[in-house]
Amino acid sequence: MTTPGTFEIHATDGAARTGCLHTAHGIVRTPIFMPVGTVGSVKAIAPDDLEAIGAEIILGNTYHLYLRPGDELVARRGGLHEFNAWRKPILTDSGGFQVFSLSGLRRIAEEGVEFRSHLDGSKHLFTPEKVVSIQRNLNSDIMMVLDECVPYGADRTYTEKSVGLTTRWAKRCRDAYPKGAAGNLLFGITQGGFFKDLRTRSIGELTDIDFDGFALGGLSVGEPKAEMMDLLYHSAPLLPADKPRYLMGVGTPLDIINGIAAGVDMFDCVLPTRNARNGTLYTSLGKLNIKRREFAEDDGPLDPACSCYTCRTFSRAYLRHLYTAKELLAFRLNSIHNLTYFLDLVRGARAAIAAGRFAEYKRSFEAIYPEEVVA
Amino acid sequence: MTTPGTFEIHATDGAARTGCLHTAHGIVRTPIFMPVGTVGSVKAIAPDDLEAIGAEIILGNTYHLYLRPGDELVARRGGLHEFNAWRKPILTDSGGFQVFSLSGLRRIAEEGVEFRSHLDGSKHLFTPEKVVSIQRNLNSDIMMVLDECVPYGADRTYTEKSVGLTTRWAKRCRDAYPKGAAGNLLFGITQGGFFKDLRTRSIGELTDIDFDGFALGGLSVGEPKAEMMDLLYHSAPLLPADKPRYLMGVGTPLDIINGIAAGVDMFDCVLPTRNARNGTLYTSLGKLNIKRREFAEDDGPLDPACSCYTCRTFSRAYLRHLYTAKELLAFRLNSIHNLTYFLDLVRGARAAIAAGRFAEYKRSFEAIYPEEVVA
Repeated sequence: MTTPGTFEIHATDGAARTGCLHTAHGIVRTPIFMPVGTVGSVKAIAPDDLEAIGAEIILGNTYHLYLRPGDELVARRGGLHEFNAWRKPILTDSGGFQVFSLSGLRRIAEEGVEFRSHLDGSKHLFTPEKVVSIQRNLNSDIMMVLDECVPYGADRTYTEKSVGLTTRWAKRCRDAYPKGAAGNLLFGITQGGFFKDLRTRSIGELTDIDFDGFALGGLSVGEPKAEMMDLLYHSAPLLPADKPRYLMGVGTPLDIINGIAAGVDMFDCVLPTRNARNGTLYTSLGKLNIKRREFAEDDGPLDPACSCYTCRTFSRAYLRHLYTAKELLAFRLNSIHNLTYFLDLVRGARAAIAAGRFAEYKRSFEAIYPEEVVA
Repeated sequence: MTTPGTFEIHATDGAARTGCLHTAHGIVRTPIFMPVGTVGSVKAIAPDDLEAIGAEIILGNTYHLYLRPGDELVARRGGLHEFNAWRKPILTDSGGFQVFSLSGLRRIAEEGVEFRSHLDGSKHLFTPEKVVSIQRNLNSDIMMVLDECVPYGADRTYTEKSVGLTTRWAKRCRDAYPKGAAGNLLFGITQGGFFKDLRTRSIGELTDIDFDGFALGGLSVGEPKAEMMDLLYHSAPLLPADKPRYLMGVGTPLDIINGIAAGVDMFDCVLPTRNARNGTLYTSLGKLNIKRREFAEDDGPLDPACSCYTCRTFSRAYLRHLYTAKELLAFRLNSIHNLTYFLDLVRGARAAIAAGRFAEYKRSFEAIYPEEVVA
């Protein structure tokens, strides 16, 4: 096995690049989209479906798994891969993002962040050392450092202080788990809110620490699309070119295309699975809502360009029926399709980059989602 | 293709028999358990799962499909098999049972039964001719006649009148669809409440009509187990030996074993799928509730004797976690297992009958479910 953390770039096209990242549970080809398995299961989707749609890595949420079933229980099962029967790579977030979403339920200090469980109100403390310990218990292939994700609209003074805290927490995470101690990789998370110089400073401070990869955190938190793109194109090139770059929690198909264009390698988002459960489905012809009356007698496949089980097997009419009848099967079939769409998108991006035609590939998505194109 | 309706008995053991029933969409081996796909989908289970668990025939509910998406819409899709992508046999009930469950919302007359939709309160009339027409639109392989299912506790006077009505409705169904008009089979339903002589009379009247098979209706409607068994063992032998016998809406594993012992060939019940969604799972060691704390760290399979995807892949600990975390995946995995259990039960029964050891097979289930054994 190649040493976990080895990152090879096979081709570039502008800032976009394609390659592969070696982990303790196998290789991840990049660019990659990571389906989100919040509590250890990608909602409505079992490992057999993940295999069928060609998922290469999934994400687990440290906050949720820590609370239930508990990271120590998972460790006693042999780690998350043994527990959830997904034997390929897993990335876990640090729990920071979830904790900072618990507005009113948490208190930040130098030591860490104190919060109350959304399940039972019990009090907990996440320190940098603690979140590394939790992720080690989960035996995550890619662990993320604890960071402070500042909300959109935070002022410069607050954001500047926060950048310092995020750097100190990142160092404590690295110290708690020295590089090479085991096969688990550790990624740093750069922050800096919506100030370019603070983004630059955070990247400078984080990249002084020897992480296996670097993430852009705190984007796609409610800001206008143009502002996100501005910061993305500012920040991504500042991240080390020889390490994987991860744009956290992003995003729409066009957001991902833009991220790839900016040189990002990894993406995760609940959008395909959450929208699947809302009946919003992505197709080569654009988004559609399967609930709409117009599909009641539509015998065609959901997406004629898609090879997933749902599109190979069922008509739009049947998918609409399942959705309107509130059948559980709708969740699985819609999720299989949307995840396939997002994975096809990154598979297509790899091929386009390798062929030197990524700009054309990007334009094809801009044509599908014109309302999202930032002038 | 052998003529639909051809029923071959390959072996008998006491009253129990094993054989196969030919339908327009293939062969069903008997005894058989039919998973219930109320609105065209077996809840949380797609055709790929049905194939994997070895389902041979599923049931669709005429009442539900008539209301939504509508039988005419399904007919325009090419029938239910084309609509739901299950290309093997489908049996549809007549809708009678559902309508008679809508207490207060329905009115019975000679013409048929008037009822209000549980979806929008709209008024509808099911006549014998109408339910045949609906089932023809669905292109059901096995259609059921309209019958009156009398509630447990109905008195002799009411039940006697009802038997007459059920017979007249059955004749009208047969007249509306003369035998051999197409590949859809039509089964009669015998009633008679909880009076043996009325059961005998109903069977006598129904078997005078040329149906492709006969059902025992109106059992398992709230009566004590001993009373159901008494009527089952009274009635089943009165049904023609050369036609398939169907015990509607039954039941627990031991109910099915008893039905087979009485000479019944076909069963359907929501129990395996409904219980799966409640976390009640059937195993070779008895029923268990996966929610229980004792399974939190149980790394063993749900049922060591089971070959289903769930048992091959996941631990009890993970299944408990999915259930307690209210993950959608729990519904699919639990349903796959429970349906496999019920199908394994009938597969095992066939082998036991063929080997002349059905009594022993029956005793093995009585040992698992001693609380259900009727003295």
